[in-house]
Amino acid sequence: MNPIIWKKDHLLLLDQRLLPHEETFFICKRLADVEIAIREMVVRGAPAIGVTAAYGLVLAIQEDPSSFPKACEILFNARPTAVNLRDAIDYMKAQLKDAFSGSSAAELAEQASVAYHEDDLKKNRAIGRHGASFLQGERRILTHCNTGSLATSGWGTALGIVREIHSQGRLVEVVADETRPFLQGARLTIWECLQDKIPARMVTDGMGAHLMSRGMVDSVIVGADRIAANGDAANKIGTSMLAMAAKHYDIPFLVAAPTTTIDQTCPNGAHIPIEERPAEEVTHVRGQQIVPDGTLVYNPAFDVTPCELITAIVTEEGVHRFPYDFK
Amino acid sequence: MNPIIWKKDHLLLLDQRLLPHEETFFICKRLADVEIAIREMVVRGAPAIGVTAAYGLVLAIQEDPSSFPKACEILFNARPTAVNLRDAIDYMKAQLKDAFSGSSAAELAEQASVAYHEDDLKKNRAIGRHGASFLQGERRILTHCNTGSLATSGWGTALGIVREIHSQGRLVEVVADETRPFLQGARLTIWECLQDKIPARMVTDGMGAHLMSRGMVDSVIVGADRIAANGDAANKIGTSMLAMAAKHYDIPFLVAAPTTTIDQTCPNGAHIPIEERPAEEVTHVRGQQIVPDGTLVYNPAFDVTPCELITAIVTEEGVHRFPYDFK
Repeated sequence: MNPIIWKKDHLLLLDQRLLPHEETFFICKRLADVEIAIREMVVRGAPAIGVTAAYGLVLAIQEDPSSFPKACEILFNARPTAVNLRDAIDYMKAQLKDAFSGSSAAELAEQASVAYHEDDLKKNRAIGRHGASFLQGERRILTHCNTGSLATSGWGTALGIVREIHSQGRLVEVVADETRPFLQGARLTIWECLQDKIPARMVTDGMGAHLMSRGMVDSVIVGADRIAANGDAANKIGTSMLAMAAKHYDIPFLVAAPTTTIDQTCPNGAHIPIEERPAEEVTHVRGQQIVPDGTLVYNPAFDVTPCELITAIVTEEGVHRFPYDFK
Repeated sequence: MNPIIWKKDHLLLLDQRLLPHEETFFICKRLADVEIAIREMVVRGAPAIGVTAAYGLVLAIQEDPSSFPKACEILFNARPTAVNLRDAIDYMKAQLKDAFSGSSAAELAEQASVAYHEDDLKKNRAIGRHGASFLQGERRILTHCNTGSLATSGWGTALGIVREIHSQGRLVEVVADETRPFLQGARLTIWECLQDKIPARMVTDGMGAHLMSRGMVDSVIVGADRIAANGDAANKIGTSMLAMAAKHYDIPFLVAAPTTTIDQTCPNGAHIPIEERPAEEVTHVRGQQIVPDGTLVYNPAFDVTPCELITAIVTEEGVHRFPYDFK
């Protein structure tokens, strides 16, 4: 399964809003399509957003090389929390330098974005190996949201570690939170696990602590959308309570992400912008309203897990331990 | 709104499976109807289950006084976690003593069950007053599941405290967890708040810690289905993680329940039976499947909050503090 497919003059994105009920590709022919795809969560997951943005810049340059600076700005603002978006844009700027106004800009941009895409996959594999070494023995792993092939360039971050442990024959079961409101766990993580025959179960977001109390889960691994310099980690809403429960039951809580997710300019979690998303994601499930008319909601898309609750942060470089210092 | 209406020879229960989309009464003419109503969650909430069971025994005696012992057994097994079910049955047994075989049994049973129903309402009001005294000043209160009029004989336990604080003009907002899988918060608590003009918002179950971190919630109040002698409290799945988050952010976490919810025969939470409910509650929302075909799930209906995480347990008798001793 390849959710991000580059086709030289257009980009195909597996539409993650429709999974697992429909497997349809969303076609991006120009920058505006890519912006919509990121904003409306056709593609989601911090690393996948970064890769998609890189290809979006190629499409912008193909259409009009002079639009590059504006294109960078548009994509930068498509979603506020995942720092990988900024990383991808900065990378493309650095690769292109002033070439984006030249005739070879489109070719150069394409090479750069393909390299960025391939590089993310290598990082995923390394994260998987490091995390699997850290968690010895048989494991029952709880995860939140989707951090697998669909959220990255393939393989996955947190789910990459789960895949690696499974490939070593040590995975008893992965338990996937359904991850309301957008149901990434129920719809995407379970779908990936079924496809790859990884033993999995789905639970609602409030069940984690109970499973820990009964030994039905012995480790938690999640991804991240932005990690501050002190190790505070923003991830899908619902993550931080899992860390608090893991602390209470004294089981390891791991954050898995490429180093591109670490934002050295951000001293701690209080400085990470938390995206507020539309009310309809909370008030409706699969298009059906679940609340009375007139219901008010909050819909923060992420929360910040305090660094002291994180047992280890696993990047492609290795396993970091608290107190965190990524320099 | 009166969700439990006794009609001399039948019982009307507001069907809570259909709220807020439909307001329909489920008619119980005999014991079997009451058993179904409790098992399938037409009526839910520990105190409301107790009151319903008392009326169920009246219907059994009206049909055949000799069926009383068997009727007690059937209702006792309808749902395993809420101890109020046992309390109601024990109360009816004590009130009737040997009279259940006599000709006046039906009349006696009816008087007893009506008294039990009225008594629960008085207890609710007292819980509300005690809890409101404990939480001084303006409050932004997070609650889980439904503990209001629909879960009791009226007014509510945790939501009774919220109502009391609101009536004193001190409630900034109550934030209701949606409470997957059965959506009692989204469907029932929000419905009650809209009806009574209590300022409310709905969030998904994973959002609580984020709201605490931002000061958008400054207290948590929940109900209970069974409280062990040491204060460990079983409540709707998802409750215990809120207690862990409240501890992390140093805000009060209150459990509100009548003394009938305290099970002195149960030394601690490990001895509380946790009901496992059907997979469909997790895999489907409003009849629509949200996961791929073949998805396995867990569906524990309750979890146990360790007593040391509970700031106070509020009963009709007053406010208990850790370490708990209810004798």
